[in-house]
Amino acid sequence: MIELLTIGDELLSGRTADTNASFIARALTEAGLSAGRFSSVGDGLEDIRRALTGLLPDTRFLIATGGLGPTDDDCTAQAAAATFGRKLAVSRAAIGTMERRYREFGRPMPDAAKKQAVLPEGCVPIENPVGTACGFLIKDAGRQFFFLPGVPEEVHAMTGFIIEHILRECGMRQIIKSRTLKVFGLWESRIQELLKDRLPDLPAVALGFYPSFPEVSLKITATGSDEQQIDNELLLFQTVIQEHVGDYIYSDNNETMEEVVGRMLAAQGASLAVAESCTGGLITHRLTNVPGSSAYVERSFVVYSNRAKQELLAVPEAALAEYGAVSEPVARLMAEGARKAAGTVYGLSVTGIAGPEGGSAEKPVGTFFIGVAAPGQTIVKKQFFPGTREKIKIMSSQMALNHLRLVMMGKGIE
Amino acid sequence: MIELLTIGDELLSGRTADTNASFIARALTEAGLSAGRFSSVGDGLEDIRRALTGLLPDTRFLIATGGLGPTDDDCTAQAAAATFGRKLAVSRAAIGTMERRYREFGRPMPDAAKKQAVLPEGCVPIENPVGTACGFLIKDAGRQFFFLPGVPEEVHAMTGFIIEHILRECGMRQIIKSRTLKVFGLWESRIQELLKDRLPDLPAVALGFYPSFPEVSLKITATGSDEQQIDNELLLFQTVIQEHVGDYIYSDNNETMEEVVGRMLAAQGASLAVAESCTGGLITHRLTNVPGSSAYVERSFVVYSNRAKQELLAVPEAALAEYGAVSEPVARLMAEGARKAAGTVYGLSVTGIAGPEGGSAEKPVGTFFIGVAAPGQTIVKKQFFPGTREKIKIMSSQMALNHLRLVMMGKGIE
Repeated sequence: MIELLTIGDELLSGRTADTNASFIARALTEAGLSAGRFSSVGDGLEDIRRALTGLLPDTRFLIATGGLGPTDDDCTAQAAAATFGRKLAVSRAAIGTMERRYREFGRPMPDAAKKQAVLPEGCVPIENPVGTACGFLIKDAGRQFFFLPGVPEEVHAMTGFIIEHILRECGMRQIIKSRTLKVFGLWESRIQELLKDRLPDLPAVALGFYPSFPEVSLKITATGSDEQQIDNELLLFQTVIQEHVGDYIYSDNNETMEEVVGRMLAAQGASLAVAESCTGGLITHRLTNVPGSSAYVERSFVVYSNRAKQELLAVPEAALAEYGAVSEPVARLMAEGARKAAGTVYGLSVTGIAGPEGGSAEKPVGTFFIGVAAPGQTIVKKQFFPGTREKIKIMSSQMALNHLRLVMMGKGIE
Repeated sequence: MIELLTIGDELLSGRTADTNASFIARALTEAGLSAGRFSSVGDGLEDIRRALTGLLPDTRFLIATGGLGPTDDDCTAQAAAATFGRKLAVSRAAIGTMERRYREFGRPMPDAAKKQAVLPEGCVPIENPVGTACGFLIKDAGRQFFFLPGVPEEVHAMTGFIIEHILRECGMRQIIKSRTLKVFGLWESRIQELLKDRLPDLPAVALGFYPSFPEVSLKITATGSDEQQIDNELLLFQTVIQEHVGDYIYSDNNETMEEVVGRMLAAQGASLAVAESCTGGLITHRLTNVPGSSAYVERSFVVYSNRAKQELLAVPEAALAEYGAVSEPVARLMAEGARKAAGTVYGLSVTGIAGPEGGSAEKPVGTFFIGVAAPGQTIVKKQFFPGTREKIKIMSSQMALNHLRLVMMGKGIE
């Protein structure tokens, strides 16, 4: 079994949330391994030592993070040396690696940093591809103890090495590949229903569901020793999932919705103007998070007032009076007005009620209309998603981008 | 000492990050208490039992979360009963509380839910103000074990009770009050310098720094038995901090920047139009996250193209050609153009280079100009903040809102 130990006073005080444990745990799970316990202790030498000796009876591997920095209160190496009755000594290998890192960064190595190369004798340094502090591995009485720095980016970069090492030590399949499908429009339970009894029976392939509002990521992970076979198994799994989940999968490459929409616009050489009411700028914020989006985002209008809808999008006052600002005709006029005013290929509009005020029996909070104006047609769709103001904004921005995606794919909005 | 135990297979698999431990730890720290160890184990009865018996030698209180739900794999109550050699029995108090909660929710209590009232004999139920599952407290051999459900909202609602209980048991001060000052424009290290040797020596008052890009929250927490004294001490601390940190404190009430700016606009009965280039809608998205923002956000323009700047904001083509879109004159023309086009009291503009492309030696990525057009004056400020596209957008939106705040306060932009 594998145990995780995260070290740091900032964890125990609640100042920092522990993201390292869940990151490593997820990586272990995807490799077919599993963690049996997480623990967190403070920076004190005695606390760390006690944690290192108080392992679960069947723990064979321990992965620890934190306490490897250059300051005096970083004493994980000291605690590890004390635990295993070893001396501390400057590791030539670690010093060499650190000197090389500093050269790459173009900075001289400060004297204080040298403390980070003082490691328990007989340990194996673990290279840190993104920082200067090495990790190290101690083998003792059939158990293996990995020590990493606590900086999340460094943990992310070093976890792969550890997992490969553990797999090799356990004589397990050593190649791990994964693929992430992004699904929007179906919740996890519905996806599970659609896939029930459909997935091929491949013991070396695992499917993980990671819901993150408003969407779900499906991560397919395959392990094995034959790369060609792994690729085939991944592809088979993906194909079956795509067959049953269909266009609800908007990316098979872990992209965001705005990256997918942006990529499609760029591929078509098309431009876009957005008219946002209840989303308040969120759609355009998301689109412009993508580098290079200035190639297709021409402009957007956040038309919070009726006057703005009239002046900027030429929505007639009469339409606003007759149907209300949150209505099918106004969404249509907004999308077409944005497209025309900006001279773009596509116009996208959202008008709705994000709450908490402004709802009515006929149009409760969470009602919104999405309009997509494309060459030759405008499609408007009414939607309802009750929730907090924040969630309604997120969901309506996501639905709007997804509707534009479907229209660009030549699919009607269902 | 206090230990935390979080229970759930979803934690060990990395599917869910553990936010309960850090929430409880922070609440303990603010109350002057401290946690000595966190552990996480899976849902298995034996794992939980082993964790409950494997306490640290000096642990007096254990707070556990998770495994109290209605399904078969929720077996924390069973594990607790086994640990302490107690029988499980339906708790009349717990059943009564649950029935009352379901009545309040207007739903009949499902049979499956009754399992949640089956608790170890002799325990004390802990009321859950936001859900149906009770928590419970077991006292055994001088130690006290608290068990809470794992749903974060429920943990948040029940932690206060536990902390008060622990403080009472330890004969400690029992009233806890806190106040959060939000600081923007100074990093934590600079704030600490400004406050060094300035803060009154009050042992019952603690100051916590919680940086969250792009700002820092200062949480002052005072504990004691005399409410009047606590209020006085809090106020004294706050006054000293305000004296030295000054206008960098934008809220003394834990508000967001957009809430503060919105509150000021509403108080003045003033309206706002925003012209966004590199922020791409983020400023308006943030402003419209605040309920009631339609009272002062009239409209916004996301003018990603030069043509949009000309057509919507009347920025002359010659100005764009002469100075470039990212320039002091264009930021000024954008702010004034937005104010004029929308007929609002204030116009706010940002134009800059969010990268990763588009930088030059003269105007590197991270250069931006902020314009605030107010009645009778327009103030433009050049800023530079290097970083990722995402961070540049966040920082420039925050600086823009902050500059508007300072202008509305009648302060020049320094």
